[in-house]
Order: sequence, then C-alpha cells, then structure tokens
Amino acid sequence: MATLVMKFGGTSVANVERIRNVAAHVKREVDAGNKVAVVVSAMSGVTNQLVSWVREASLLHDAREYDAIVASGECVTAGLLAIVLQSIGIPARSWQGWQVPVITDQAHGAARIVDINGGSLIERLDAGEVAVVTGFQGLEPTRNRIATLGRGGSDTSAVALAVALKADLCDIYTDVDGVYTTDPRIVAKARRLPKISYEEMLEMASLGSKVLQTRSVELAMVYRMRTRVLSSFVPPEEMKAARPDTWDEIGTIVCDEDEIVETQVVSGIAYSKDEAKITLRRIADRPGIAAAIFGPLADANINVDMIVQNVSSDGRSTDMTFTVLQTDLPRALEVLKAAQAAIGECELVSSSDVVKVSVIGIGMRSHAGVAAQMFKALASKGINILAITTSEIKISVLIDAAYSELAVRTLHSLYGLDAD
Amino acid sequence: MATLVMKFGGTSVANVERIRNVAAHVKREVDAGNKVAVVVSAMSGVTNQLVSWVREASLLHDAREYDAIVASGECVTAGLLAIVLQSIGIPARSWQGWQVPVITDQAHGAARIVDINGGSLIERLDAGEVAVVTGFQGLEPTRNRIATLGRGGSDTSAVALAVALKADLCDIYTDVDGVYTTDPRIVAKARRLPKISYEEMLEMASLGSKVLQTRSVELAMVYRMRTRVLSSFVPPEEMKAARPDTWDEIGTIVCDEDEIVETQVVSGIAYSKDEAKITLRRIADRPGIAAAIFGPLADANINVDMIVQNVSSDGRSTDMTFTVLQTDLPRALEVLKAAQAAIGECELVSSSDVVKVSVIGIGMRSHAGVAAQMFKALASKGINILAITTSEIKISVLIDAAYSELAVRTLHSLYGLDAD
Repeated sequence: MATLVMKFGGTSVANVERIRNVAAHVKREVDAGNKVAVVVSAMSGVTNQLVSWVREASLLHDAREYDAIVASGECVTAGLLAIVLQSIGIPARSWQGWQVPVITDQAHGAARIVDINGGSLIERLDAGEVAVVTGFQGLEPTRNRIATLGRGGSDTSAVALAVALKADLCDIYTDVDGVYTTDPRIVAKARRLPKISYEEMLEMASLGSKVLQTRSVELAMVYRMRTRVLSSFVPPEEMKAARPDTWDEIGTIVCDEDEIVETQVVSGIAYSKDEAKITLRRIADRPGIAAAIFGPLADANINVDMIVQNVSSDGRSTDMTFTVLQTDLPRALEVLKAAQAAIGECELVSSSDVVKVSVIGIGMRSHAGVAAQMFKALASKGINILAITTSEIKISVLIDAAYSELAVRTLHSLYGLDAD
Repeated sequence: MATLVMKFGGTSVANVERIRNVAAHVKREVDAGNKVAVVVSAMSGVTNQLVSWVREASLLHDAREYDAIVASGECVTAGLLAIVLQSIGIPARSWQGWQVPVITDQAHGAARIVDINGGSLIERLDAGEVAVVTGFQGLEPTRNRIATLGRGGSDTSAVALAVALKADLCDIYTDVDGVYTTDPRIVAKARRLPKISYEEMLEMASLGSKVLQTRSVELAMVYRMRTRVLSSFVPPEEMKAARPDTWDEIGTIVCDEDEIVETQVVSGIAYSKDEAKITLRRIADRPGIAAAIFGPLADANINVDMIVQNVSSDGRSTDMTFTVLQTDLPRALEVLKAAQAAIGECELVSSSDVVKVSVIGIGMRSHAGVAAQMFKALASKGINILAITTSEIKISVLIDAAYSELAVRTLHSLYGLDAD
C-alpha cells in the first residue's frame, strides 16, 4: 500500500466523459489499496474562456482579480470528479486551494507555493477518502486572496502536494505515455525512457521538452519526490495499479540517479525554437563593455542565455553574440538602443531563425569526449555552430533553424539512442 | 452620504458589455459620495451550464460538491466587475462568500445565512473602496465548505449584507422598474407603486409576484431594511444617485408602513398558477378525519394551503377540498392513497386547472367590507370561488384557471388601482 498523488491536466478532464475516465484510473489505484490524492486542472477550454472575459473587461487588469476569476475553472473540475467518484462508490471530496490550505507568496499570476498544510487531507486519506485538490491555485494569506501559479502550474501543485503528504509517488497523467529520448514527431526511432534522473529531466524541461513543467521538476529534485509521467489516454483497465515493485513498468519515472542501474552517457536530445540571437558588431574591445551591454538587459528582467565574444582581430573592436527568448527580443532591442551611449558605436543585428539543440546525460560527468563527438558529427553534416553553452550534464549548441531536424536525428543516432 | 448595497442579477451581468453598464450605475453612486457594496449573481447561462455538468456527472449528487461547483459562477462575475470598476478609476475588489465571511448553516443547496462578519468590508468601504461581493453563497464553517442559498438567493445575500453593513438602503436592480399593482402583462393599466410596506411585499412575493425573493423580504422586514426595486436597463445617466430625500423618486421602495403617507385599502393584486386542488369526496364526517388526511401530508413535507370542508348534508359524509403546490401534487396523491385505510372509503379527485388570486393591502386592517366587495364583484362576472383563505392584510380565492385574467382585471378596477 502506497500514498499516491495523481495529476490530470486539461485535456484529460475536457468533459464529463473524460472525467469518468479519470475516475476509472483513480478507482484502479483505490481498489489496489493505495491512498490517493488527485490534482486536477480546469477542463480544457474553460480557462481560455475565463481569460478572454478578463481581457474583454480590461487589458490592464488587477492580477488578484485575474486569479480569483481564473482559479474558478479548477474548482468546477474538482467538484465534478468528486461527484463522479462518489457515483462509482468511492468516498471523495473536493478541496480548493484555500481549503487545504495551499499557501503561496504574493506574486499573483505566477505565485510560488510556500507551504502546504496537509494535516486535514492526511486525516481524510487515512479515513479512506479520496481528496480531489484544485491544481494551479492557492491562498495568499496576508490579504486572504486566491493566487494562481501561472500556466502549467498544476504539475507544481501535484509535486508540492506529494511532498506535503509524504507520498511514495507523484503520477502526472498527460497525453503522452512518458519521456522520450527526443521528440517522437521528429525522430521516429525515439524511445521511451523507463527512468530518468531529476537532473536530466530538469535540463530536458528547461531545454524545450514540454512534458513536465520546469518548476515541478525543480521541486521534485529538491525533495527527491519520485515523479512518474504517464498517459491518461491508455484505457484504465490496461494499466497496472502503482506498486513499488512494478511502478517503472509503464510511463517514465523521474527519480534519483542511484535508482537507475544502467546509465547511458547521453539520455536525450532536446531542442528549443524559442530562442533569438542578437549580435553587436564592431563594438569597442575594452574593459566594462560586457557590463554596459548586459547590465541594462538584467535591469529590464531579460534573461540572456548563450554568450559568444569573438577574439578581437585588430585589438580594438570585436563582435558580441548572445541569445534571449524570442518573446523578449523586441524589448531587448529597445533596451540596447537606449544603452547605445554607454556601449558606444556598433551595429545591431538580430535573428529568430535559430534553434538550440541540446544533448543531455548524467553519464557525461564521467565520460570525456562527448562534446568533441558532437561537434565532429554536426560538422560532417555541414551544420555551423553559432554558439555553445555547457553544464556538467548537458551541451547546447545554437544552429540555423533550417538544420534543426537534421541535427537532432544525427545526434540521436550518434549516441546510440535509436530504437531497434 | 449614504451606505448602499446594490444588487445585480444574472441578466444584468449577462456579458462583459452588461457588466460595464453595471459599473456605470455603481460609478454614479460613488461619484455622489455614497459608500457602495455590490452583490452580483452569476452571468445568466453560466449557472445553467454548471448545473448541467453536475447532472451529467451524476443525477444523485452530493449537495456540498454541487455547491462548490455552482458557486464558482458568482466568483467570475465579481472579479470581472472589480476589474471593470478599476478600469474606470474606481478602487474595487471582489469578495467571495468565504472571504467576507458570509456564514451559513449546513443546509447545502438551500442554506440560510446565519451571520455576516462585515468588519473587513466596512474597513475597506471607509477607505473608499467598492466591495463586490458574490451573491447566493457563503461558508459553512463546521466543515469549511462553500454553501449556496438556492436559486434566487442573491436577493437574500444583498439584504443580509445591507443589514450587516448597517446600510441606509438596499437597491435590488432587476429587469423591471419596480413593483406594480399587478402583473402589467395582464393588466395594461397596472401602476408602479412608489412605496410598499414590508408586510404587503411579503404577501406579494409569497403569492406569485416574482420581483423579489420571499426570504429576502422576510429578512428586510425583520431588520426593517429599506429595500428598493429598480431596473438596471434604464441607462445609468438617466437615473439619479441615491439620496435620502429623493430615493423614492424611482423604482419601488419597500419600507415601514409608517413611511407610507397615503395608504390605499388595497395595494396590489397577485395571482399564482402554481396551485393544484385535491378533493376527497364522501369521506366519513367524524372526529379525527382531518388528522388522518393532513397528518400523512405533513409527514411527507407537503404544504397544504387552502382548506374547505363542506357542511355535511346527511350528517354522516362530507367533501374535503384543499390545495398543494402543483409540483407536490403527484406525491400528495400517493401519500393519500397510502393513507386510505385510515381515512376510509372515499373518492379522490384532483385538478391543476386552478389559479389563486389575491388582494393585498395593509389598509384592510382598518377597512371592513373588502372581502364582501370582492366576492360580489367576482360573482357579478360569473366567477365561482372554489376556496378562500385570508390573513389580516390579504384575501385569496381559488378559481378556475380560465377566469384568471378576468378576475385580476375586475379586482384591479374594483379597488381603484387602474392608472388614469
């Protein structure tokens, strides 16, 4: 017997029929003797309707009122699932964020969970009741207002709740059946990973894999909360109930690297089309020039990712290239133009026609030569590298967008990830 | 300067455009220096969508979950109105039932307000903020669950809030511009009443007028809370702000009878088509027969309204006629059949083809002959009276439904209510 958190996103609860399917997944776990807390999102479409009303009311709106309105979507789903569970003989009740309570900070619209007081919930779980908890929302206690975690926040709600309940496993049900070595829509030979370490999953999430929300993986990593990705679209009766000896048989389990017996050097290839490249040509090669460029960007809350400074050919001028998120590009260009006086004479060039391809694996820590292999393979296909960043367990390169599929496929084969 | 509660129902907030209209009404009052709390219903259509999801989930559903789901509709309206008010420069925030808190009893789906702690609200009103409060809902504190007051409960929310805030006036905005001497769809000469006493309004509401919810009038009467009925469809700029010296110039003000200078003997004619008539023919005329009939009906929670027992012609058998709500008729007939052994041999006849017409006026207390006039006028039109009930300030007769319009028009003229 285990304590389980099961999370279902918007497409998994899109209508009452889909909510019945979710109830069948929950019933399977309850029948196997597991204690279950369920975290639900709003029915897909509902949040969009609410957001569009808010925008119609005023484009510049109070984030606290936005939260009060948008959080109502999850309340509806939680109540409906509780009713469906009761109708198939499973004691259940819905819990809204303020009822648990899920305590957040004051950053309305993108709040962080500060604490979850799981006491009442644990009491009800011990009494054999299923707790259906609204994802994405909590209570900001100083003003007694509802706060939301921002889009995708329900994954984070689920992991945080699992931590508070000291759950054995946090199951995130989604529309894919696990984490793949790369995007299966691009590489047909992509394989499902039975296990992946927290660190690798965090890189995957940050680098473009949309399976789990980055903050939820951070939280899972910090608290070592075993988190599984699986599909709500597999018929409930075809899946086994979660048991410690079998829970890596379906989906992908995100866990401690110690639990992964055979580690690959490279576990996956991620790519992101969200990057934009900015180049400052022929800037003065003098001390303080980097501060003159990146200081104002930081002040404007714009994250800079990859940075390349060319070696100065004449000892006096150089080129500086870096990347920002595409959504930040217009604002970044404005900031740089405003800072032109401090930066000095230069030419400003930008492009969104780039892609970041990343190779991820905890095995890199103990294997040399991964980067060299990567650069050689890309060169052999005629792919030019525009920028590079590395960490202990990943290497990212920026390339022309036109080469993204070729690069991903080449690297997927190179590191032996292709399925037989 | 006055403290005002303004209540807007579902059709008054049907979409964002209508909510902007509501905001303009609120602005008029704020600009005049009034302190304003607004009570809102769900956007019309929203509650129906939520209820239909609940029914699809399960016909036999937990009332607490029903409440949690259905109450979300008002939260959306309250947030949207707060945003629109802010956008036109009026400080405002939304308050959900549990935030105020509005404390209710445990009768989920038809809960009663037990207490409203208006402290935080009063503080915000004093600071110049408009409070937008969700109608129809509150917090059941023992289980920390949301409870709803049942359909139409927002009127009651508004009056209860007005009492808690010690407001000078509770304005109920609806789709009619006041309380009329009778239904203007039936009698073209019906007149708007500038004032009506609590007692009369309570009879009107109970006897078929749909303008105000009965419980809200009860509450207003108990706490002597001046309550005004007016239309949200009159353009906001064509209406005057509420001021003690002018607030009877528009709408209808429900108030203490002492405030009504010239009282009419009869203030209004109400009618209700919700009645059904049951007759037990040839029952034994013996002690205990009434208990044998009405005991089982009371046990089944069926309200009996009018009762007529014919004088026995032979000293041994009699006829008993009474009315119940049409919705209770099938259940009442079942109960009576089951009680046949105790009642004894008799013939059971029922009809829904009846209407109750009522004449209401506090002036009746001091004027004799109102009933005699009524019976004579109806007789002169050939209208047969099937049953009669009276109270200190009303006389109701049950007649064939075919005569309802004729009866209402006849009585409206008889008591001098026709407009010139």
